[in-house]
Amino acid sequence: MEVSQDARSFSSQLVPAIFSVERPVVCVQGLGFVGLAMATVLANTTRSDGSPIYNVIGVDLPGRKDLYSQINAGILPFRSEDPTFAPELERSVKTFKNLHACGDDLYYSHATVVVVDVNLNILKPSEDYRKYDLQDAPFRAAIRLLGQRIQPSCLVIVETTVPPGFCKHVVMPILKEEFARRGISDEPLVCHSYERVMPGRDYLSSIRNFPRTYAGCSPRATERAREFLSSVIDQRKFPLRCELATEASELAKVMENSYRAVNIAFMYEWTLLAEKMGVNLFSVVQGIRVRPTHNNMMKPGFGVGGYCLTKDSLLAQWSADMLYGAEYGLPFSLEALRVNDKMPLHTVELIRSRRELTNVRIAVLGVSYREDVGDTRFSPTEVFYEAIKPYGVQAVFHDPYVEGWPEQPRAEFISSVEEIGKSEIVVLATRHAEYVNRSAEEWIRLSAPGTLFVDTFDILSDDKITALLRSGRDVVGIGKGHIESLRLNS
Amino acid sequence: MEVSQDARSFSSQLVPAIFSVERPVVCVQGLGFVGLAMATVLANTTRSDGSPIYNVIGVDLPGRKDLYSQINAGILPFRSEDPTFAPELERSVKTFKNLHACGDDLYYSHATVVVVDVNLNILKPSEDYRKYDLQDAPFRAAIRLLGQRIQPSCLVIVETTVPPGFCKHVVMPILKEEFARRGISDEPLVCHSYERVMPGRDYLSSIRNFPRTYAGCSPRATERAREFLSSVIDQRKFPLRCELATEASELAKVMENSYRAVNIAFMYEWTLLAEKMGVNLFSVVQGIRVRPTHNNMMKPGFGVGGYCLTKDSLLAQWSADMLYGAEYGLPFSLEALRVNDKMPLHTVELIRSRRELTNVRIAVLGVSYREDVGDTRFSPTEVFYEAIKPYGVQAVFHDPYVEGWPEQPRAEFISSVEEIGKSEIVVLATRHAEYVNRSAEEWIRLSAPGTLFVDTFDILSDDKITALLRSGRDVVGIGKGHIESLRLNS
Repeated sequence: MEVSQDARSFSSQLVPAIFSVERPVVCVQGLGFVGLAMATVLANTTRSDGSPIYNVIGVDLPGRKDLYSQINAGILPFRSEDPTFAPELERSVKTFKNLHACGDDLYYSHATVVVVDVNLNILKPSEDYRKYDLQDAPFRAAIRLLGQRIQPSCLVIVETTVPPGFCKHVVMPILKEEFARRGISDEPLVCHSYERVMPGRDYLSSIRNFPRTYAGCSPRATERAREFLSSVIDQRKFPLRCELATEASELAKVMENSYRAVNIAFMYEWTLLAEKMGVNLFSVVQGIRVRPTHNNMMKPGFGVGGYCLTKDSLLAQWSADMLYGAEYGLPFSLEALRVNDKMPLHTVELIRSRRELTNVRIAVLGVSYREDVGDTRFSPTEVFYEAIKPYGVQAVFHDPYVEGWPEQPRAEFISSVEEIGKSEIVVLATRHAEYVNRSAEEWIRLSAPGTLFVDTFDILSDDKITALLRSGRDVVGIGKGHIESLRLNS
Repeated sequence: MEVSQDARSFSSQLVPAIFSVERPVVCVQGLGFVGLAMATVLANTTRSDGSPIYNVIGVDLPGRKDLYSQINAGILPFRSEDPTFAPELERSVKTFKNLHACGDDLYYSHATVVVVDVNLNILKPSEDYRKYDLQDAPFRAAIRLLGQRIQPSCLVIVETTVPPGFCKHVVMPILKEEFARRGISDEPLVCHSYERVMPGRDYLSSIRNFPRTYAGCSPRATERAREFLSSVIDQRKFPLRCELATEASELAKVMENSYRAVNIAFMYEWTLLAEKMGVNLFSVVQGIRVRPTHNNMMKPGFGVGGYCLTKDSLLAQWSADMLYGAEYGLPFSLEALRVNDKMPLHTVELIRSRRELTNVRIAVLGVSYREDVGDTRFSPTEVFYEAIKPYGVQAVFHDPYVEGWPEQPRAEFISSVEEIGKSEIVVLATRHAEYVNRSAEEWIRLSAPGTLFVDTFDILSDDKITALLRSGRDVVGIGKGHIESLRLNS
């Protein structure tokens, strides 16, 4: 990597008492999952001779001392399914000695680049999703802090998913205001570039080895961003894409998640129809996907979870309302959020079409919203749980990747699938390999005759369903059609 | 191909006075575009020695004598962009002498297979698309005719796009009723299999060389369908897909078109927002499409046309209401139809944001709904035309593929793009190669200074737009963002 004039001017300002080797300092603002992953990737970014390029300081709020001491001891402070995350973190702290975490915003003044990974939430408080509540105060405060601390030549890369237009209409004005107070007349260097991280085994790799879009608020910011991102991402395999304006990059991020959400919502109504028709929609979708123009069609499922797909359309709706007077808004994308948020209720109805829900014990296998990951944020299992509570069922949960369920701390867990035997209903809620790979014989051994298995995500194959039915278990499945017909045909 | 017992039993019943060589007879019911294409493909289906397998009789209503005499003279009775269509038709009539068209339903009694390609329309008479009007009388009458004529062992392949469930709940009962009247107790052999024809240069090829789904109402019908379709479609390259039930095949057809329609409707609201933001959405979409999971994202555009995407969701809604009591229905897919039907009105608004519409002359280039095809059915240009009529504009139209516009017989046409010079506004409405390939210099030569060019489909490149702006022409474009910024940046 070539180091620009801007970057060089700071490499000499060695941060005292933290790093023994002089390198350009990059700060990552916000040490959530993405922020710490980004910091780890940056710290492990090396030249061809294997030597690290940057000194990386992760900065979060002052109160989080336990977090900092863990990181600074080289220990990953949360669970990750990515087996490279903990070793790379440890290597940067212990071997490279170029990663440090703290709550001290003074360090921003040493940075050549600050990567902003501060969360920006938006709440959906009511049925009417246009009455959103953008909780941007922490993000704005974080940007203000940068305006008070950074050098004029420091590049600010906003990686947070923001409402489109935020860099130009919110970040820039705040930075300019704080620069003016400090008597700095330079135009702040702001750029937007979004990660496309994928929770799971390849978390760090999905930062490094994935196409990345960026755009700067000025030609100089764009050039600095190109230079910086080129040092982190393998350009030969994953060329950077530069948009003409930060709005375009910001829009792209929320639009690609909205696209997914809309295509999941599309599946919902066809699932309901297919079930009424007795048609196995998984087979239909498999047949449609042979068309290259249709190979991204989604499958029937339990619901949508996670932090992005459940809210990103709303960020754009905020921009339509607040920044651009785009009256039409995004009604279709918002309707998709509404449909997806209610989707798990269909599983409740599917169960009720077979069983009384009062006085039964239900084992729910899968609390994470995504397979082979322990991410419970906005999990459809939670929506399902809230919906069955009023019936007075006794629900127990299992998830090999979830140790505590922060959103439902009172939920009762079983420690192993072996304990489902006491439940009259078993809901397979997440497509974890542990559930997919279990044989029909095991499910039969673990359950009593008459147990109702509820397959929300094509977790049981047709053969397994047939075997379960033959052994006197009952099975229903989202999008599976007439399951009895499998028994008749086999 | 092996010929089954059922097929062989009919090969001996030579149809008198039509064909000189004895072969199994296949009737195609309905000689619209798809029906005649299917008949042509079947007649040109040959063994490895180049000899044709079938004698094919295309049957339509008795009154269409001109149609039959044209076909029987080896002449394609309508225009096609597929250069193979007319020669293949001629070859089957003149060389193979195995294709005959007529209005005589008696010939059905000689068929081993009847392929049903009778249109089945559904009308959207009001704002409330659930007040559809299924016009299934012609289709039902056609099936009844088959019930009165065909031999019990004749396979009926429904290729028409029908409401899911139609084969089982409509076709089978009608055939059984007519069989019973004739004292036939055999179960009718019914199968559904849908074509995926693509209007344009590869029309016939898109029948032969494309994956095909099918399903029979009984194991025997399924086996006969497999045998027949295998003789027509190259199985090594495009393996047939068998669904367990005709409902699944019927559902797949309307669902894949609904998927497309929903993804086009999704683009509409993001296009409106992007335009307000000044963002070029074509660039944003190009950047998103690098993700394999997002490579089917649609582009901004003028609107949706054609016979399928504008109505197929409604066929499924009919089934939800009339056959399956699926109360939830398909609200999302129907909303997509509504959005798409109104989409061309946005171009009217875009023009009105620049120009008064009274007392101007508008040249609309492109009447077909699809590029390099002359298909005017439900063309967005028609919606646009109806919307500008009240303003008292003088509209003239051009389309290299359209000789007459059946839906708008009074529309005034110009015979060449050279004649746009008298128009103050030029709307590029279809992505025909003739328009895409024309240079900026030509557009400038043909138009007066001050002319407003309206690019509805990314027909003008950024370079051409810049050149047009420099020469004193004005340009707006759907999804193009701030076009003036192109001039500033260049």
